[in-house]
Amino acid sequence: MSTFGEYFKVTTYGESHCRSVGCIVDGCPPGMELTEADIQPQMTRRRPGQSALTTPRDEKDQVEIHSGTEFGVTLGTPIGMLVRNQDQRPKDYGNSTMDLFPRPSHADWTYLEKYGVKASSGGGRSSARETIGRVAAGAIADKYLRLAHGIEITAFVSSVGSVHMFPPTPEHPSPSTNPAFLKLLDTIDRETVDSFVPVRCPDAAAGEKMKKCIEEFRDRQDSIGGTVTCVIRNVPSGLGEPCFDKMEAMLAHAMLSIPATKGFEIGSGFGGCEVPGSIHNDPFVRAPAETGAETGASRAGIPRPRLTTKTNNSGGIQGGITNGAPIYFRVAFKPAATIGQAQNTVTYDGDEAGVLEAKGRHDPCVVPRAVPIVEAMASLVVIDALMAQQARQASRSLLPPLKQTLPAKSTVVGGQAAVEKVEANNAGVNKE
Amino acid sequence: MSTFGEYFKVTTYGESHCRSVGCIVDGCPPGMELTEADIQPQMTRRRPGQSALTTPRDEKDQVEIHSGTEFGVTLGTPIGMLVRNQDQRPKDYGNSTMDLFPRPSHADWTYLEKYGVKASSGGGRSSARETIGRVAAGAIADKYLRLAHGIEITAFVSSVGSVHMFPPTPEHPSPSTNPAFLKLLDTIDRETVDSFVPVRCPDAAAGEKMKKCIEEFRDRQDSIGGTVTCVIRNVPSGLGEPCFDKMEAMLAHAMLSIPATKGFEIGSGFGGCEVPGSIHNDPFVRAPAETGAETGASRAGIPRPRLTTKTNNSGGIQGGITNGAPIYFRVAFKPAATIGQAQNTVTYDGDEAGVLEAKGRHDPCVVPRAVPIVEAMASLVVIDALMAQQARQASRSLLPPLKQTLPAKSTVVGGQAAVEKVEANNAGVNKE
Amino acid sequence: MSTFGEYFKVTTYGESHCRSVGCIVDGCPPGMELTEADIQPQMTRRRPGQSALTTPRDEKDQVEIHSGTEFGVTLGTPIGMLVRNQDQRPKDYGNSTMDLFPRPSHADWTYLEKYGVKASSGGGRSSARETIGRVAAGAIADKYLRLAHGIEITAFVSSVGSVHMFPPTPEHPSPSTNPAFLKLLDTIDRETVDSFVPVRCPDAAAGEKMKKCIEEFRDRQDSIGGTVTCVIRNVPSGLGEPCFDKMEAMLAHAMLSIPATKGFEIGSGFGGCEVPGSIHNDPFVRAPAETGAETGASRAGIPRPRLTTKTNNSGGIQGGITNGAPIYFRVAFKPAATIGQAQNTVTYDGDEAGVLEAKGRHDPCVVPRAVPIVEAMASLVVIDALMAQQARQASRSLLPPLKQTLPAKSTVVGGQAAVEKVEANNAGVNKE
Amino acid sequence: MSTFGEYFKVTTYGESHCRSVGCIVDGCPPGMELTEADIQPQMTRRRPGQSALTTPRDEKDQVEIHSGTEFGVTLGTPIGMLVRNQDQRPKDYGNSTMDLFPRPSHADWTYLEKYGVKASSGGGRSSARETIGRVAAGAIADKYLRLAHGIEITAFVSSVGSVHMFPPTPEHPSPSTNPAFLKLLDTIDRETVDSFVPVRCPDAAAGEKMKKCIEEFRDRQDSIGGTVTCVIRNVPSGLGEPCFDKMEAMLAHAMLSIPATKGFEIGSGFGGCEVPGSIHNDPFVRAPAETGAETGASRAGIPRPRLTTKTNNSGGIQGGITNGAPIYFRVAFKPAATIGQAQNTVTYDGDEAGVLEAKGRHDPCVVPRAVPIVEAMASLVVIDALMAQQARQASRSLLPPLKQTLPAKSTVVGGQAAVEKVEANNAGVNKE
Repeated sequence: MSTFGEYFKVTTYGESHCRSVGCIVDGCPPGMELTEADIQPQMTRRRPGQSALTTPRDEKDQVEIHSGTEFGVTLGTPIGMLVRNQDQRPKDYGNSTMDLFPRPSHADWTYLEKYGVKASSGGGRSSARETIGRVAAGAIADKYLRLAHGIEITAFVSSVGSVHMFPPTPEHPSPSTNPAFLKLLDTIDRETVDSFVPVRCPDAAAGEKMKKCIEEFRDRQDSIGGTVTCVIRNVPSGLGEPCFDKMEAMLAHAMLSIPATKGFEIGSGFGGCEVPGSIHNDPFVRAPAETGAETGASRAGIPRPRLTTKTNNSGGIQGGITNGAPIYFRVAFKPAATIGQAQNTVTYDGDEAGVLEAKGRHDPCVVPRAVPIVEAMASLVVIDALMAQQARQASRSLLPPLKQTLPAKSTVVGGQAAVEKVEANNAGVNKE
Repeated sequence: MSTFGEYFKVTTYGESHCRSVGCIVDGCPPGMELTEADIQPQMTRRRPGQSALTTPRDEKDQVEIHSGTEFGVTLGTPIGMLVRNQDQRPKDYGNSTMDLFPRPSHADWTYLEKYGVKASSGGGRSSARETIGRVAAGAIADKYLRLAHGIEITAFVSSVGSVHMFPPTPEHPSPSTNPAFLKLLDTIDRETVDSFVPVRCPDAAAGEKMKKCIEEFRDRQDSIGGTVTCVIRNVPSGLGEPCFDKMEAMLAHAMLSIPATKGFEIGSGFGGCEVPGSIHNDPFVRAPAETGAETGASRAGIPRPRLTTKTNNSGGIQGGITNGAPIYFRVAFKPAATIGQAQNTVTYDGDEAGVLEAKGRHDPCVVPRAVPIVEAMASLVVIDALMAQQARQASRSLLPPLKQTLPAKSTVVGGQAAVEKVEANNAGVNKE
Repeated sequence: MSTFGEYFKVTTYGESHCRSVGCIVDGCPPGMELTEADIQPQMTRRRPGQSALTTPRDEKDQVEIHSGTEFGVTLGTPIGMLVRNQDQRPKDYGNSTMDLFPRPSHADWTYLEKYGVKASSGGGRSSARETIGRVAAGAIADKYLRLAHGIEITAFVSSVGSVHMFPPTPEHPSPSTNPAFLKLLDTIDRETVDSFVPVRCPDAAAGEKMKKCIEEFRDRQDSIGGTVTCVIRNVPSGLGEPCFDKMEAMLAHAMLSIPATKGFEIGSGFGGCEVPGSIHNDPFVRAPAETGAETGASRAGIPRPRLTTKTNNSGGIQGGITNGAPIYFRVAFKPAATIGQAQNTVTYDGDEAGVLEAKGRHDPCVVPRAVPIVEAMASLVVIDALMAQQARQASRSLLPPLKQTLPAKSTVVGGQAAVEKVEANNAGVNKE
Repeated sequence: MSTFGEYFKVTTYGESHCRSVGCIVDGCPPGMELTEADIQPQMTRRRPGQSALTTPRDEKDQVEIHSGTEFGVTLGTPIGMLVRNQDQRPKDYGNSTMDLFPRPSHADWTYLEKYGVKASSGGGRSSARETIGRVAAGAIADKYLRLAHGIEITAFVSSVGSVHMFPPTPEHPSPSTNPAFLKLLDTIDRETVDSFVPVRCPDAAAGEKMKKCIEEFRDRQDSIGGTVTCVIRNVPSGLGEPCFDKMEAMLAHAMLSIPATKGFEIGSGFGGCEVPGSIHNDPFVRAPAETGAETGASRAGIPRPRLTTKTNNSGGIQGGITNGAPIYFRVAFKPAATIGQAQNTVTYDGDEAGVLEAKGRHDPCVVPRAVPIVEAMASLVVIDALMAQQARQASRSLLPPLKQTLPAKSTVVGGQAAVEKVEANNAGVNKE
């Protein structure tokens, strides 16, 4: 349905031709400073008309907070937000032959099959305009995550068509084993990504090729897909809810709910299937001393994890639970369905053939604008998992301490210097 | 948490060393014939010890239905099911040095970080044993889907390491444009897949190479990953709940909740990013006359969709909603984390280094056994979306008919034979 | 939280001093005619200022539909609705001593305890203004219920202070055994109730006494409570979801979520505890032939239940499931907390005593205005249960027919005229 | 459906004639000592056969924990529990005429209307046997609540038929204004209640009358209802989730989900409608110094609320949120539907009349056995609300401190000794 999240619950509404689009955020922690100024930047990064590569419309998309704050502070009550639509009149049926022919690979036909009522925009809420509510809610989550834990979420364009920042090679079937890729993940931020407009690929050479690629498809009235990579740094360990709501499962859910997405991979991803286990396994090492800026967690004396991994093919998640290393994932976006070329189709009733030709200018590639949407959905997933884990820890903290939860160190045979050979996985009968 | 689904709700429980593992299925339609015999076959396909390629343990994994049926018929009340564990004694702490060292890329450490209590199996419910409840519940859903709509769900191994059934080529960056692949999807069934044991790749040549690949990794005490492809045929149109619970979003969620998964792609997937929109778009054509066997839907006079698509890069889903064409997707599984080779690690407290070496025999590649688990999760997603849509249609069917939901055919300018050129996407101000 | 319902899901937002209050309705069936004109009447019945007995403010409370409909027809997508607040400025802290003293039996103090942030209105969303979203959503549900099943929901004031329409007597400890009460339930409608303004008690004599009672409390700057009785007619049998979401459990939840409520009773209620089982049990009889107006259900050939009960102490619900007889229940509302008399209190920090005196005019009794709110919540409960049951039946209808679900009639010993003596409840070992 | 709670989530299964009844508890905090010995006592208090007043069957009802604990400590993973049924064979249809005639005021007919399949026990999961899962889960919640906050939940029988512990009087239309009643609430515990078997009414004189009343109804093969009152002490302030999940709304939902309940009232309840606001309002006073035993909260330095109320007509809840004062409520149970007297009924198809006569011995009054069920459901409500609030506070605690959340004390005009007259409720335009 139209609700995402259990703890930080976002419900969106709105089509293209109604009065407004928006959302209600239920569960935002009280006592956080929040005004429209915290939300508008991501709204602006999302909206169309940012460059010659995207649709040249000029929309304002000014967000209004309608409830849940007073004097710039969250009350803990539902935050209602909306963005007015500038053209609120639905179009009459039957005025254009578009009403008779479903557009190929749009949602016109499936929405009609589902609801039995045809929205004037065809695909109802499948429009990218629906993502406005997500981005607004995500900006609130994002602010909390930064304040509480210094969590940084940054997405960027990693491929357009066959142009990749890190193309797969026999040595690196996945970029997860490529040190250059891991180094980029450690430092990339939104400001840097935006310095690489219009494509938002933080590599000047690859970005230039991507730009050319998009222009070529645009000029031949065609479209092309691409991928967005996203990294989440400073996530606490312990997030993600077994078994069904593993962190990667929730991220996959969130990403595949974005219009035009076709795939998701976490950490080493599909390429990782080709990496031997002996290389793919991430050895544990002691985590370096903390050096980050002050956060809510550091003020509260909550330590960063004691261990980290030497490599990070896991993408920061093991057994569905975060281990504190950077989470990173990649999302595939298909070529935009709206193209200027003539396309064959048939009428809704299947009785007559027809040819559709889209007029006007269209996004030949959606990935640059998808960047803030990916970030927004990532922040919604992380805040929900974080609040679930904070709830668990808070509940647990009121129980009497257990006598023993971990074996005493003194049981280690061989002492400090010994390098133990340990029989792992000495499986019992039910052990799989 | 441990619940999946809204309408057909599955809640699982159980670790490796407790009395039993199992689940409660809440929401199963009443009046369906159901006994353990409907469930056991998928349990048996899932369990270890099926071939020299998988772990050589002999487990019975006999499912017991504890409630929700009488005289072999579902009552509509919760169905409790369980499989007894044969070794119910948790292992004492401190008996092995494994208790001191977290295994690389297992869930030992993250489970401890999350819960603060160490299960004797290390990774608690991250074990593949947890999937027993899923497979049991999935078998019930599967039966309903077959009876009601003739829905067929079949998964198979599509790659092991770098050995692919349909390797990407410049012409076909995604198999979705390859007619041989689409033809396979139209006909493959579980019986055929199982005739290709031990690998379950329904291509003799590729399967033989995969078998060799797995053996090689096994012999060098290493492991390797692979992918499972799944097809769902005869799905009604209209399934999938915008915006957040799009059909592909729910499938991605379900698949990434399976242990050891790293990626998901629907339809053309990641390869589809490299296909031009003009090729990727799926033109609508009139659907062929129905020829299928009798189903509940056909008995009830519910027609199959009037349209279908000529190609199927969409993977049967447009705008998050099924269009009646086969749904197909691919899931990436990482190399198994348990390997015989020595691996470096450190103690839980980070103070001492150590080396772990797994003894015994282990699954060098999990994909053959993952096949029924992928099918189970797919069936849970489809039944939930189906019941949601049936609910919507049932509710709507009691409303007075609307005067006009689709433009009258007579408004088409040019008559039957005309091939219209239609201006699609004549965007209003808010149209994105 | 701020969401009610699973199928017909309502999420509300808004405080007294923000831009607007409103809601999102997710799950409304598509294809229903709907405009603001369907919603405004209940909004108007709810708003203050309707008579000398209620607060004399003049609010417009005009509802706006922002999404989910086009050309006056529901699309099946979320319906966003809002009512603008006329005074949008939160009040500065510290301007009045009210900021220092929590009002007795208001939510000022508990909201601060809960959220740690003080809303300028004191009790945040505990205000009756929050019910605007409920009433708007309820009006949509109400329309569906009428169209689909001819369901009629009518609430009225049944007591004010110690003045009761049907005071308990030794013969009738509950009105459920009083034929006059049952007859009223069969016929009462909203129009009739509103003809008894200002009190909305459909009994001229009792209503007059109640009016006097309220005036007396108003004149001495005091307040008084009362009860609202609600009847739901033409409900299909089979609604209510065992075990936790029994119909009466959901009604109780809904009613006790209305501000100022202190109690709920279904059917015979508390008085029924004093009625012997031999009288309280409702004998089954054949239901009379249907004579109702055309509904969606009758058009679809869905019959009314074959049986009904001779008496109705059950209040239309048995085992948590509706039996088709009228559902009726009673809700207790406490005396309004705001009174003109001086009241002792202490500062939020507990350090200083003080006296509070409310100025202006206040509702001395909230029950007349509570009538449409009770109806709204009732309609939200019924539509949710109805959609759940319609979903079940739709799913079940696609299964092959069972050979036998009920014992064949021919097994009855004694034939048509026989009056059997049957051993009921021949309990097995686990039977309780 | 069969799940209760959001944070501490309980899913139950089981009918009277299946293999077992039980539940899964998902969300129990990890690290709590827990064995069957913590759960069995409430199971035993619930089971039939405890006295001559209840059904004389001898059931063992031994609970088994199947998962979620190791070495007597909760792992944080789902806790599966079950109780085996001793008679697992469903009864064949058509063996008794009971199969043809629905029993009056049982769930036989409504279950058939709902599910279209007849369970051999008639009313499927409407049996009191279904409550076993609730009581098991409640015992776990209860243990946590005691350990973490010293919360004590005690229920007792407050009336049988027309025999009341605190009958309504003109002076005290509700016992909430009666000091004797409030004093009882402050001290009553389960041990004391059980010293008043068989009726569990903690008043020797009233209990004796109730016993006689039950015996009379038993002897004339009839039944009688009664009420159970429950008090929850030491609840933290701030629990309950506006707007729909107010504390009293969740309690009402929980209580009305118990079989045979007809009513719920919180605090002053229905009688409170007749108490003037000037008496009903609970003045705030400074809370006394804490003297309780050590709890998790006290160890963690979490203070009890600074304020309390002088009276407690609110029943510990204001605006849907707990204020720290004792929560108390009363639940109405109807007379048991199974009676030995002959009763008229008709066949399921309505075609033939019949007379039913229950053989064997039956519970003439269910309230004594309902006591632990009421306690169990109360504990499930409180733990869920507690975990929600602990989650909120944990999330909020990581935000930077706000400059000002409460007006500075120095703004109070008149100084420490002054008794201020404060204009409360100086309503703005939207203030209701």
